[in-house]
Amino acid sequence: MAQYRVLIDADDEKGLVHKVSTLFYNNDLNILSNSEFVDRENNKFFMRSVVDGEIQESKLEQLLLDILPKSANIEVIAPKKKNIILMVTKEMHALGDILIRHEAGELEANILCVISNYSDLESLVQKFDIPFIAISHVDLQRAQHEEKILECLANYSDVDYIVLAKYMRILTPRFVEAYADRIINIHHSFLPAFIGANPYKQAYDRGVKIIGATSHFVNNNLDEGPIIDQEVIHVDHAYNWRDMQRSGRDIEKIVLSRALKLALEDRIFVYANKTVIF
Amino acid sequence: MAQYRVLIDADDEKGLVHKVSTLFYNNDLNILSNSEFVDRENNKFFMRSVVDGEIQESKLEQLLLDILPKSANIEVIAPKKKNIILMVTKEMHALGDILIRHEAGELEANILCVISNYSDLESLVQKFDIPFIAISHVDLQRAQHEEKILECLANYSDVDYIVLAKYMRILTPRFVEAYADRIINIHHSFLPAFIGANPYKQAYDRGVKIIGATSHFVNNNLDEGPIIDQEVIHVDHAYNWRDMQRSGRDIEKIVLSRALKLALEDRIFVYANKTVIF
Amino acid sequence: MAQYRVLIDADDEKGLVHKVSTLFYNNDLNILSNSEFVDRENNKFFMRSVVDGEIQESKLEQLLLDILPKSANIEVIAPKKKNIILMVTKEMHALGDILIRHEAGELEANILCVISNYSDLESLVQKFDIPFIAISHVDLQRAQHEEKILECLANYSDVDYIVLAKYMRILTPRFVEAYADRIINIHHSFLPAFIGANPYKQAYDRGVKIIGATSHFVNNNLDEGPIIDQEVIHVDHAYNWRDMQRSGRDIEKIVLSRALKLALEDRIFVYANKTVIF
Amino acid sequence: MAQYRVLIDADDEKGLVHKVSTLFYNNDLNILSNSEFVDRENNKFFMRSVVDGEIQESKLEQLLLDILPKSANIEVIAPKKKNIILMVTKEMHALGDILIRHEAGELEANILCVISNYSDLESLVQKFDIPFIAISHVDLQRAQHEEKILECLANYSDVDYIVLAKYMRILTPRFVEAYADRIINIHHSFLPAFIGANPYKQAYDRGVKIIGATSHFVNNNLDEGPIIDQEVIHVDHAYNWRDMQRSGRDIEKIVLSRALKLALEDRIFVYANKTVIF
Repeated sequence: MAQYRVLIDADDEKGLVHKVSTLFYNNDLNILSNSEFVDRENNKFFMRSVVDGEIQESKLEQLLLDILPKSANIEVIAPKKKNIILMVTKEMHALGDILIRHEAGELEANILCVISNYSDLESLVQKFDIPFIAISHVDLQRAQHEEKILECLANYSDVDYIVLAKYMRILTPRFVEAYADRIINIHHSFLPAFIGANPYKQAYDRGVKIIGATSHFVNNNLDEGPIIDQEVIHVDHAYNWRDMQRSGRDIEKIVLSRALKLALEDRIFVYANKTVIF
Repeated sequence: MAQYRVLIDADDEKGLVHKVSTLFYNNDLNILSNSEFVDRENNKFFMRSVVDGEIQESKLEQLLLDILPKSANIEVIAPKKKNIILMVTKEMHALGDILIRHEAGELEANILCVISNYSDLESLVQKFDIPFIAISHVDLQRAQHEEKILECLANYSDVDYIVLAKYMRILTPRFVEAYADRIINIHHSFLPAFIGANPYKQAYDRGVKIIGATSHFVNNNLDEGPIIDQEVIHVDHAYNWRDMQRSGRDIEKIVLSRALKLALEDRIFVYANKTVIF
Repeated sequence: MAQYRVLIDADDEKGLVHKVSTLFYNNDLNILSNSEFVDRENNKFFMRSVVDGEIQESKLEQLLLDILPKSANIEVIAPKKKNIILMVTKEMHALGDILIRHEAGELEANILCVISNYSDLESLVQKFDIPFIAISHVDLQRAQHEEKILECLANYSDVDYIVLAKYMRILTPRFVEAYADRIINIHHSFLPAFIGANPYKQAYDRGVKIIGATSHFVNNNLDEGPIIDQEVIHVDHAYNWRDMQRSGRDIEKIVLSRALKLALEDRIFVYANKTVIF
Repeated sequence: MAQYRVLIDADDEKGLVHKVSTLFYNNDLNILSNSEFVDRENNKFFMRSVVDGEIQESKLEQLLLDILPKSANIEVIAPKKKNIILMVTKEMHALGDILIRHEAGELEANILCVISNYSDLESLVQKFDIPFIAISHVDLQRAQHEEKILECLANYSDVDYIVLAKYMRILTPRFVEAYADRIINIHHSFLPAFIGANPYKQAYDRGVKIIGATSHFVNNNLDEGPIIDQEVIHVDHAYNWRDMQRSGRDIEKIVLSRALKLALEDRIFVYANKTVIF
């Protein structure tokens, strides 16, 4: 008996739930969980069902294609470990959190490798028998550096997600487009506050009483991609910006790992530069 | 065109979503929102749909009865203002919060009256042209006092919910059974911690770093009814128990009002001494 | 026996705590609570002590002046009810929260009057026997409208704080300077995100997963004054901007009331466009 | 120039701050930070100062002893890495979080060894070149098992803290007394709710809407020691107890690491089965 995650989005119209649930029923598929949402402003329907039964993946996809309107995007996914690549710079906390979860068997993922523009984190990664690839940006133009990374990535045929676990360089449109909606970043502020460099310094200078962290998909505008998850902690006047940075790490790593988990479980729809999450 | 909230719970079996959504489709009802949940441990199915279309309430209920299994509980509710009665003792914050929301038109509710065992809050309630009924417990046995309240309540034919907005007396089983799953209480702790009298004093004595508030339906065991909502705030060693009480009021009133809103919007299922909330 | 709140800020130098505590000791003043903070970046010292003893307010202030460096700002405050004026537009929740707290005796404040550019909230305010003054902005230029408000305020000789409880108009520099560090505003976003008009709509469009509210002193730049307090709540894709607005009201009113309480208890230092709060 | 953390608690009396700050001043010590608190209920004074200057640790301690009342407890601590031992059972998240922080240089601590009653976590610990000592409890009585652990601990002469990073066995009074106020535990609930075994199952059965984690010092009564820190997350009806457990891990590890950091920085006073934390 197979289990499938069925993800559908389509222009909304009467009868969509009826059609899909009837198809499931007629094919003897059992609904394990079912979530729906209609974005009334954009007249857009979203549905995620987990079903089990005796049917082939491709067959189920074809049946859904047959009954759903042309506007529909349909994904039928048999749960399996996804392939991810981590990109980091020098900070250990977000990377370490993912490595420990991976080691604990918490993640439905294979970590293919860790790529960094520095070699500081090599010894940590090697402890976990995961390839560490240092690609220095020194003396290279941005495009040249990225070219090297893209060449490296080309060695891996089936990459589901690239996770920027505190990778502190801006990616070019070329790179982002190559992995559209598949690059997950953690930004160390409560976006859209404090876009860009050193958000903790910005937060300190502004005198905020709460700091945050935001996980999001990367698009071509810096820190403006679809938000997946956010978390905050309270601070006060006694925090200088380094204290904020230190405390902020705890939410950075948690929010990035939560976002990664949602992606690995196929729970995220990206639409209109936002996310619908079931 | 009428709008209905359809609430269904039933023993889970294959095809329930299919049956209900097909019925909606065949009767030309449009699904505005739809939430489902299956409690796998107890094999119990819950569904709340909001639909609109041209059909009578009783007709829709009958059609659902015809197709659903015997175990099903079905409610078809046309949204309208519900009738509520507030019970209070001396504290103003929770009552005041509900009165202001009522005045602002935020609540789908008519406040029929406010009943209290003291008259302290009479002048506040009268400002809002709502009947205030003082029923003192002094010199009365608990059963006698409650009898008087029940007599008073009997004057109101159609009471949907009784809201205990810091009513500081314990209700007897007789009272509770008369309004089963219709009495909403706010308890000034993070239940099940600190059941009973003066939970802030208990919290202070225990040295907790977080205090909470819990809204719940009342059942026969003190503070053990189904929980609707909870909220917390951080405290530290500098809070004595009166400081905790003062700060706690802010979450007490918010959590009670949130629970009341959920009830008025028919979003709560009570099951196995818990709540399923859509 | 008198109780005083002593607030001191000064350029930091060795021995400040020693000097002040020795002065308290020699004058037989008992320290009920004592908070200190040094902003190392700016080399600035802050201290708030609550003391009791047999001494005159002016005498204590003079003694402190005698021993502290020239850079010091010194306030000796005998706790008493402060005079506040509320300014509102049409929304009831923030105003209502303050009125109920005032009625409950929670606030160390007299509400001198409520000023609004509409008359919608008149009936609510009148219930509490507080003067309501409508000063319409219709057909007036901003300066003219403000002139009328300033004239009205001039009738009150001793205004400690002006509380903008969802007053939805921008104040000019002339107005702000007249009440520097004495105007408390509530902004319905997590500042500095979503400055300006309709922040809930901005937040919805950005697809955030958390919304916030910020209380701050008003300065000449819109929504850029010193932050006093902030609070957030989680939202998801199912919230449209009106849902965010509805849910946001609960934190708006709580955060504004918390800021007002801090101000009334003389717990806030304003410095470098930030606040130090004890 | 040396830096010291000075921790003082004493029965409260007039002039304590004066005496200590004058002593600092006369010995040319600069106060870097200063926190005070008086527990009025118990008439108890607490003070933590960080000072720097040219003085010997023992000299400063003697000077303080000379001027403070007999009731005073005085600690003068020169900041250095403390020695800690971790005890674990099978779960990886809390241990992993501490190991990564240690590796990142975030902790002022040397991890002397990790002791476990199982060998599951051996390979993780060995990656970090830290001794792992498995002491099985199988076929042993509790006292015998603990005796073996105590023997093992006796090999380490200078243990500052023992951290129970999800060590799932109850310690006897004999063990606890040997390390009074030096054993830090993480309990996977919002204490005092859900004391004892499987708190997530208890929380699920009770239908709570919030779950928590509590770090505390261990005393002789199970889960009743002084609380250091607590954190919570919201859950809903869709969480079964294993989901709660999974989500709860994130706050367990954060709260334990926060408590450990507070202990390593000498910020915690234990008093009346509570903590005062500066």
